[in-house]
Amino acid sequence: MPRVAVLGATGYTALELIKILLRHPEAEIVALTSRQEGQPPVSMVHPSLNGRLDLRLEDLSPAEVAARAQCVFSCLPHGASASVIPALLAGGCRVIDFSADYRLNNAEVYAQWYGQKHPDADRLGKVVYGLPELFRDQIPPSSLVANPGCYPTSAILALAPFLKAGAVDPRTIIVDSKSGVSGAGRTPKLTTHYPECNESISVYNVGRHRHTPEIEQVLTTAGGKTVEVIFTPHLTPMDRGILTTTYSQPITEMSEERAMQMLRDFYADEPFVRVVDHLPGTKDSMNTNFCDVTARVVRGRLLTISCLDNLVKGASGAAVQNFNLMYGFDETQALL
Amino acid sequence: MPRVAVLGATGYTALELIKILLRHPEAEIVALTSRQEGQPPVSMVHPSLNGRLDLRLEDLSPAEVAARAQCVFSCLPHGASASVIPALLAGGCRVIDFSADYRLNNAEVYAQWYGQKHPDADRLGKVVYGLPELFRDQIPPSSLVANPGCYPTSAILALAPFLKAGAVDPRTIIVDSKSGVSGAGRTPKLTTHYPECNESISVYNVGRHRHTPEIEQVLTTAGGKTVEVIFTPHLTPMDRGILTTTYSQPITEMSEERAMQMLRDFYADEPFVRVVDHLPGTKDSMNTNFCDVTARVVRGRLLTISCLDNLVKGASGAAVQNFNLMYGFDETQALL
Amino acid sequence: MPRVAVLGATGYTALELIKILLRHPEAEIVALTSRQEGQPPVSMVHPSLNGRLDLRLEDLSPAEVAARAQCVFSCLPHGASASVIPALLAGGCRVIDFSADYRLNNAEVYAQWYGQKHPDADRLGKVVYGLPELFRDQIPPSSLVANPGCYPTSAILALAPFLKAGAVDPRTIIVDSKSGVSGAGRTPKLTTHYPECNESISVYNVGRHRHTPEIEQVLTTAGGKTVEVIFTPHLTPMDRGILTTTYSQPITEMSEERAMQMLRDFYADEPFVRVVDHLPGTKDSMNTNFCDVTARVVRGRLLTISCLDNLVKGASGAAVQNFNLMYGFDETQALL
Amino acid sequence: MPRVAVLGATGYTALELIKILLRHPEAEIVALTSRQEGQPPVSMVHPSLNGRLDLRLEDLSPAEVAARAQCVFSCLPHGASASVIPALLAGGCRVIDFSADYRLNNAEVYAQWYGQKHPDADRLGKVVYGLPELFRDQIPPSSLVANPGCYPTSAILALAPFLKAGAVDPRTIIVDSKSGVSGAGRTPKLTTHYPECNESISVYNVGRHRHTPEIEQVLTTAGGKTVEVIFTPHLTPMDRGILTTTYSQPITEMSEERAMQMLRDFYADEPFVRVVDHLPGTKDSMNTNFCDVTARVVRGRLLTISCLDNLVKGASGAAVQNFNLMYGFDETQALL
Repeated sequence: MPRVAVLGATGYTALELIKILLRHPEAEIVALTSRQEGQPPVSMVHPSLNGRLDLRLEDLSPAEVAARAQCVFSCLPHGASASVIPALLAGGCRVIDFSADYRLNNAEVYAQWYGQKHPDADRLGKVVYGLPELFRDQIPPSSLVANPGCYPTSAILALAPFLKAGAVDPRTIIVDSKSGVSGAGRTPKLTTHYPECNESISVYNVGRHRHTPEIEQVLTTAGGKTVEVIFTPHLTPMDRGILTTTYSQPITEMSEERAMQMLRDFYADEPFVRVVDHLPGTKDSMNTNFCDVTARVVRGRLLTISCLDNLVKGASGAAVQNFNLMYGFDETQALL
Repeated sequence: MPRVAVLGATGYTALELIKILLRHPEAEIVALTSRQEGQPPVSMVHPSLNGRLDLRLEDLSPAEVAARAQCVFSCLPHGASASVIPALLAGGCRVIDFSADYRLNNAEVYAQWYGQKHPDADRLGKVVYGLPELFRDQIPPSSLVANPGCYPTSAILALAPFLKAGAVDPRTIIVDSKSGVSGAGRTPKLTTHYPECNESISVYNVGRHRHTPEIEQVLTTAGGKTVEVIFTPHLTPMDRGILTTTYSQPITEMSEERAMQMLRDFYADEPFVRVVDHLPGTKDSMNTNFCDVTARVVRGRLLTISCLDNLVKGASGAAVQNFNLMYGFDETQALL
Repeated sequence: MPRVAVLGATGYTALELIKILLRHPEAEIVALTSRQEGQPPVSMVHPSLNGRLDLRLEDLSPAEVAARAQCVFSCLPHGASASVIPALLAGGCRVIDFSADYRLNNAEVYAQWYGQKHPDADRLGKVVYGLPELFRDQIPPSSLVANPGCYPTSAILALAPFLKAGAVDPRTIIVDSKSGVSGAGRTPKLTTHYPECNESISVYNVGRHRHTPEIEQVLTTAGGKTVEVIFTPHLTPMDRGILTTTYSQPITEMSEERAMQMLRDFYADEPFVRVVDHLPGTKDSMNTNFCDVTARVVRGRLLTISCLDNLVKGASGAAVQNFNLMYGFDETQALL
Repeated sequence: MPRVAVLGATGYTALELIKILLRHPEAEIVALTSRQEGQPPVSMVHPSLNGRLDLRLEDLSPAEVAARAQCVFSCLPHGASASVIPALLAGGCRVIDFSADYRLNNAEVYAQWYGQKHPDADRLGKVVYGLPELFRDQIPPSSLVANPGCYPTSAILALAPFLKAGAVDPRTIIVDSKSGVSGAGRTPKLTTHYPECNESISVYNVGRHRHTPEIEQVLTTAGGKTVEVIFTPHLTPMDRGILTTTYSQPITEMSEERAMQMLRDFYADEPFVRVVDHLPGTKDSMNTNFCDVTARVVRGRLLTISCLDNLVKGASGAAVQNFNLMYGFDETQALL
């Protein structure tokens, strides 16, 4: 049973991860880190963990973490994550990184979108993008897995079947996404202050959200042709969930039946992608590791709609799915 | 001071209308109709009107309405509205119709999208579409005004400046809209049952929402070329508000500055369209008659974002704006 | 592994129950009943069960259920439940009843509060009230368990320690409860129509909610003296969760420390009651089988605050807790 | 037409106040103050004011404010407010103070509950408590009015009729209040961070909320006997609205009819208190200056339920009501 540590344990993805791991028969949580003063019990920060986990938050060095844990889930922000992961790997840990630090292959693209030099640039391009539906084979032997972003997971799962088949023009893709507020993290700010974002839907970071190059890179890899997307994220007044609507131009005329069949074929054996006939809502997959996907054709254009829980399939559930693959457990362990 | 009647007074648009009219110094509400049993006081149905309006709901014939009122706001559903409006007009009333019955010019298109024969087809094509920003001159002399749909208002106000200028390709338009739940009306159903739609965003009527031909017709009229749109409505967990994101291909390269300037020029004298530099949210225009619009250019594509309150600028506020124009009152009367 | 059936499988408690049972290693769901037409797959009614449970809803007689299942969870409404349970028991089933039918001991009290004659009055008074924290010993041998109401569970768990100890005056108790909307069930009605109850807190059934006699009866049993409560339920704009604030007069002066100690002592060995020092919110116990309880003393009056998820500890989680006790499984099985 | 200034113009009460004043034919807004850097246009901070008010936020001294404005609405926090008000009064301004600084009559009680020495203690006890329903006559001649707190308004309006009549025991009063999140102000903090407070009701400041002495003092004044209340505030997941449920012991047996009649008699001539027969919800009075009140008798105890909008009747609407009284305008001006 791997001993696991969670770095940056005060955030929402960490909380969700801990809850999933507490259900996992093959994981033992041995350390939770945070820079919080005074090493409070984790249940002081996350009252929902009262009576569930009797650990304190600690401010541990990578060496201290490595001395205690075999597998590390890093929920640190980008930049911070890549600053400690080399030492963890050197200390013998296997690492699942929630940040964007190892998702992009190219240090220049990283610098351009994240506004800082990559702290561990040499490793870029050698780390598996931990989306089992596309890269399952590369995950088990990995010591480091880049856990996908929430928006990218919703867009990639919807579009990859069509790009892999060369069925849509890779320069016509629009990704219009709607996310719940937990995606913005646990640090209070005006935009996520309740009376500001409640009862309001808004659009943000149009044309410059950092998930854009991630979606493009993975879909380019999947399809073999350069993909360009217009990505428009919206902040929706709900705790969790992402609904992504995509629009793209089929290379040749495509029927709705054909589009649905392509989805069904592609995901026939996947435990966590549900190809559904109806038009989904985010609540159907709330608190689950499922991504619901469907397709429509309107005026010759292909539309896909995909829904997932940004904290589960979009973060912590996906991480445990990767953990299961890395350690040879049943891929669905603790996730159903 | 015109004596006004409200038909179908139990719904949300009627309630909003009544609240606005109560602030209007030049309107006297003299009748509220409904098929409800027993002629209850309107405050039994709408408790927020307690102490505000001492009228009962009545089941009146068109002749009875015409005998009492000079101006009629019909909040009846489509089909029902066009069944009584001819008699109201014949009785000398001026009518502002909230339904879709007189918005489309073509009885066949109506039959195709609304699934029924139009009850008053001869009048189609002769009724002004009551969007002052495009058709202000035609409103004052009209005896019948077709009040625009909520989604169409948000899409048309955002796109008309570009289509009128011939600046975007009219066959590349995508309209991705997000609406609050009040747009679905006051009749309880499963999709709008609180535990179903709360904490969930969903998509519905993809490619077959009835507002599609309305958007296309008005934008075609505005631009002089046949417009085709892909329209995707989403149900958002909030009471009111619509945010519409559109995507279209400029005919020639367009800068963001140029796009914004076109909006500013087009709406320079409009009291209820605010061209804003920031990315808006629906809360900014909640409970107001404003539509906030902005534009962006991403990878050469034009994006517009527009926000309005579906019950005000998307329905009852627009209706009072039309009323003001019809009777020669200040256009902003009761609306600021 | 007991074969289980769920009667009335279209509601929210049934959905929650199915989700819990799907995680239970010792339960096999063999039948789901409903009067719905056409025997749809359960995932048509509950899309969140897509890919999780491949059963159809069936309109089965008690005999058909008994032929297939060993344990029956009845999520039928009151009246309907007691009409089929005798046949199920006669057929050899063990039954956990979610309705109020077997919670009250007295057929006259039942008739008075539920407005109908009890269909199986002879059994009243012989059925265990399935609240393990008070009646654990009586549950394992039972063939029929009355699963407690959601509000009563929150009030009883908060007050029982003080009434059992004779520490508060049983005629001074006020129970002010706030519940999420799922407690009102899945049938659409105006009061739970999204635009009606969203962004609004309201009070209902003041002095005449049916959970009043249930709270009184169980607390009277617990404390041995006649308890009278004033019970005021409020409808809160959220999906799930109950927060109950109680006020009562201590018999002799009581310190806050003493009150907290009494709670801690009473629940020292309970897996699902968390005595917390802080003031809880419903989110802390959302989606869990926990009830969080704390106490305060203000101006000599005892206040308790308790929080639980009305669909879990207030219904389906409690039912599985009872199921675990009835079949000798670990009491927390599938519930952590 | 009085020239008015708003101090502390970045908060929610200030925004609501500005919106009401913009509708007021007899008020001219001439200054908005804030310590924000750089004197931004107010619409930068409150985008809903775009196109409505073309003023900048300024960091003005009391003398500068007094040179410009005749009437000052202070939305500053307690302590800060009483630090500038003496200079404003000396400069000839009339002031309506939203803070708690002049609500209490006693500097020691103030110091005890607010944790600081009062900056202007000599004036305490000489300032009218601006609740027109109780102290209307004292408002017109006042140069300084203490605008009531939101919770106190809801509790006092519900209870004053009974205490003035000596009909309830003043030592048995419980006030259980539920408020929307805007009451917590516009400064982001964890407790009002969307994913923390959404979908959760919680209790806070039990037995030590600062509105307790305010409620007690005003009700004591009203009834002539020392009133003690147990006040329990709850944070409810909605933007605005307060529902207050009170429990108290009638001196002699009281019927529900008698209780309702006492309310109706007391408020017969009040423009903003609606005595309603039904059980109200906060949405009925949302965005209005009304307080809805009703009463019930349960097991001999008197219950009152009152609802208001904390930003309107609980703050800015009440302030304009006071403004109207101070300047001899129609009391309902801009408020219907």
